[in-house]
Amino acid sequence: MDNLQIGRHISGQFNEDLERVINNVMHMGGLVEKQLTDALIAVGQSDVDLAKQVLSNDYQINAYEVSIDDECTRIIAKRQPAAGDLRLIMAVVKTIADLERIGDEAEKIAKVALESFSSSQQDLLVNLDNLGRRVLEFLQASLDAFTRMDCETAIKIHQMDDKINREYEALMRQLMTYMMEDPRSIPQVMTVIWSARALERIGDRCQNICEYIIYFVKGKVVRHTTAEDMKNL
Amino acid sequence: MDNLQIGRHISGQFNEDLERVINNVMHMGGLVEKQLTDALIAVGQSDVDLAKQVLSNDYQINAYEVSIDDECTRIIAKRQPAAGDLRLIMAVVKTIADLERIGDEAEKIAKVALESFSSSQQDLLVNLDNLGRRVLEFLQASLDAFTRMDCETAIKIHQMDDKINREYEALMRQLMTYMMEDPRSIPQVMTVIWSARALERIGDRCQNICEYIIYFVKGKVVRHTTAEDMKNL
Repeated sequence: MDNLQIGRHISGQFNEDLERVINNVMHMGGLVEKQLTDALIAVGQSDVDLAKQVLSNDYQINAYEVSIDDECTRIIAKRQPAAGDLRLIMAVVKTIADLERIGDEAEKIAKVALESFSSSQQDLLVNLDNLGRRVLEFLQASLDAFTRMDCETAIKIHQMDDKINREYEALMRQLMTYMMEDPRSIPQVMTVIWSARALERIGDRCQNICEYIIYFVKGKVVRHTTAEDMKNL
Repeated sequence: MDNLQIGRHISGQFNEDLERVINNVMHMGGLVEKQLTDALIAVGQSDVDLAKQVLSNDYQINAYEVSIDDECTRIIAKRQPAAGDLRLIMAVVKTIADLERIGDEAEKIAKVALESFSSSQQDLLVNLDNLGRRVLEFLQASLDAFTRMDCETAIKIHQMDDKINREYEALMRQLMTYMMEDPRSIPQVMTVIWSARALERIGDRCQNICEYIIYFVKGKVVRHTTAEDMKNL
């Protein structure tokens, strides 16, 4: 982790506590990234074992959330941080909540690998995989920006979600058409629909993480700000 | 608001600040409850105007979230609360995030009223309405428990979500069958599916609010605790 960037923002005395917390967030983020990667591989390769592994690993992410959250409350009570320090801790508390939910969504995606698809349905999985790759990129970029508390990057990648939403909408239309043409496929296609939805939700949560970075660095809540206004921050 | 209950938990000096925050959460909660109620009425009565009103009112909920969140950070920085006081503020920060998202889900539900349904499709809306009423009850009970910081009630109503999930699964099966029997109805039915999903998500978020109440009163994170273990708290 590049502690220099973080170090610039915080006062000396919290360094050790905060570094430990940020390191834990990084570990948790790495785990979430791995879960999403594995879920996508499991779906792409119909790998039932890998899918089951994703399902059984989720508890680790949950455990991280509980322990980091606890650590943050302890730091606030013990260190009584103000201004930037406090904003950083609040940003961490919110980020880990989103990371935990991204883990839950990865589980939902992994479940698609437990379904069996006919060869003609494989097309749908290809498009799901494309959406998945784009979302995974967004997650990686968000975690990277978080590690460096890089506000410029956060503002820039924040808009990646628009592209994800457009790709998601196109996939949805394709899936609906598929169901209308072959109603017997509806149960399978619905599984793909839930995964696509899960990916779209992950995109929203990556966007949240970008917003927490901006909040920490700029001290501004941009949750309901337009893209245009965000450029002028 | 019954301040006595809150008063019992907190130390004297924060009373005024905390009371103001809790009152604002109550106002926000009332607004969210009204949005969900109106969304369900709009769907039930195909009331396009009311649906549009729900869509245009959402900004008020967002504004509450931003201002309460800001107020909470200010209180932490100014008052440097410890133990129960701090847990209460952390519970508020998390609760308003969930309330804001419940507002977003209410918007999605309202959008169903903008679709037109054939008379044979009205059956689907009746079952959606039943699920909606149950979720609205859960929201009201959760907000009520939050106002009184009533941990016993929070533990008891926490399980309402299981019932909601079962009702949601049954509705989903019905909607899938409907689509398979009449593929031309797929676009309309998908709108109902998204609303049902939104209601299911609201149930999850009400469950989160119950967990924050338990966290505040008991000092324990129960997010990943089984119903059985929760009884022994």
